Amino acid sequence: MSPKTACFLVIGNEVLSGRTRDSNTQTLAHALNAQGIILSEVRVIPDIPQRIIDAVTECRARFDMVFTSGGIGPTHDDITTACVAEAFGVALRCHQESYDALNALFPEEAFNQARQKMAWLPEGSTPIKNTVSTAPGFSIGNVHVMAGVPSIFRAMVQWLVPQLEAGAPLTMCSWHAFNVYEGTFAEALTTLQGDFKTIDLGSYPFARDDKHGVALVAKGYDSHAVQEAGRALKSLLTQIGVTPISGEPAP
Amino acid sequence: MSPKTACFLVIGNEVLSGRTRDSNTQTLAHALNAQGIILSEVRVIPDIPQRIIDAVTECRARFDMVFTSGGIGPTHDDITTACVAEAFGVALRCHQESYDALNALFPEEAFNQARQKMAWLPEGSTPIKNTVSTAPGFSIGNVHVMAGVPSIFRAMVQWLVPQLEAGAPLTMCSWHAFNVYEGTFAEALTTLQGDFKTIDLGSYPFARDDKHGVALVAKGYDSHAVQEAGRALKSLLTQIGVTPISGEPAP
Repeated sequence: MSPKTACFLVIGNEVLSGRTRDSNTQTLAHALNAQGIILSEVRVIPDIPQRIIDAVTECRARFDMVFTSGGIGPTHDDITTACVAEAFGVALRCHQESYDALNALFPEEAFNQARQKMAWLPEGSTPIKNTVSTAPGFSIGNVHVMAGVPSIFRAMVQWLVPQLEAGAPLTMCSWHAFNVYEGTFAEALTTLQGDFKTIDLGSYPFARDDKHGVALVAKGYDSHAVQEAGRALKSLLTQIGVTPISGEPAP
Repeated sequence: MSPKTACFLVIGNEVLSGRTRDSNTQTLAHALNAQGIILSEVRVIPDIPQRIIDAVTECRARFDMVFTSGGIGPTHDDITTACVAEAFGVALRCHQESYDALNALFPEEAFNQARQKMAWLPEGSTPIKNTVSTAPGFSIGNVHVMAGVPSIFRAMVQWLVPQLEAGAPLTMCSWHAFNVYEGTFAEALTTLQGDFKTIDLGSYPFARDDKHGVALVAKGYDSHAVQEAGRALKSLLTQIGVTPISGEPAP
């Protein structure tokens, strides 16, 4: 069984303008790895209705599932819910349970139209639980719509992803070494990749403060083969005369 | 003159696997803002040749310019250069000046085929200077191909972007306040957005440690209107009884 593929749509001008550095991709990637789902593409798109509708429509056809973050709050720039409904050709309807939960949260005069909007979900969707601030995300078809605020996004991912159909989890094994350049071992690594065809071997140079080096990573869905490839990466570093250190370099 | 649009293709399994948190988007966004170019989409795609070729082909047609990061080093997973050449239907040729610069950098026995590969650029391209580690990026047509290592990416962006045709720079003005929820002012903000049609007003809730609040951002290419919108955002916060603080909340 080949693992299912996922696309993540980050909806938000704040990432495109450089105001915010996205951290939700990493949160989602780790959760999907554990569930055996491949994060196959990430797109960051602006808060423009047609762009959101087009991206949802294209990506839900191309990938087994789509996750989105951002644009489900109460303000005028929170348009994701309406756009996803449009992409599916369905209307919004008030989700009573979510409405009641939000209603209970606010004094009556504060539960205004903007806040009520957060309980309106596309017809045929099921809510994604928000343990942080109550307003739900939702799943419709193969599209899962979540909040952009990292703490809420994380809570939604932790609630949702373990419920999705699981594949074999992705496993990784890594080694790094200082004072080595990729060019020194690139040819040997190409040979090694040929020996481990089911495993992805990656080479990632790093430079931090005055230190530089390379991290070598073996990644795949066959944990036994990943361990073997990891041992081979360690030998490769030893053979070129540098000291292999287990795991990733400290950030 | 409407500002030019850009798409950023992050090429790298390491971001999709969650191993690395991308920081190059923010570096590029800030440089483009200053140059008056809109970062209109970001895509993170894997090191798979057809995916890279398809993304380059689609995005260079859809956006005024495309920037890429990653996959131009010496190892087997560095396939960006070959894929971009294929997308443009041109061959790779040895760029003599880059070859000589790399050759001067390494002792003869270390300047192997893997390292020589970094001097082979698509026919018709011009190199992007790498002041950090010599191996160049390149521009071909409206596509600008750069390294993934953040320090090298930054150096290439700083060299390249100021040479691109400039528009009016993007300006921003922001205020934030603690202990306020978006729902309290969402309707007033909608009204305000109607008053400032050329300006993007954004509302961004934050929650860090035990503190929560909202940042309000006005963003646009007319710096005078941005300042006016900023003053209106400040008044909005004052009117709902919280203290507006200039700028973004501390990270």
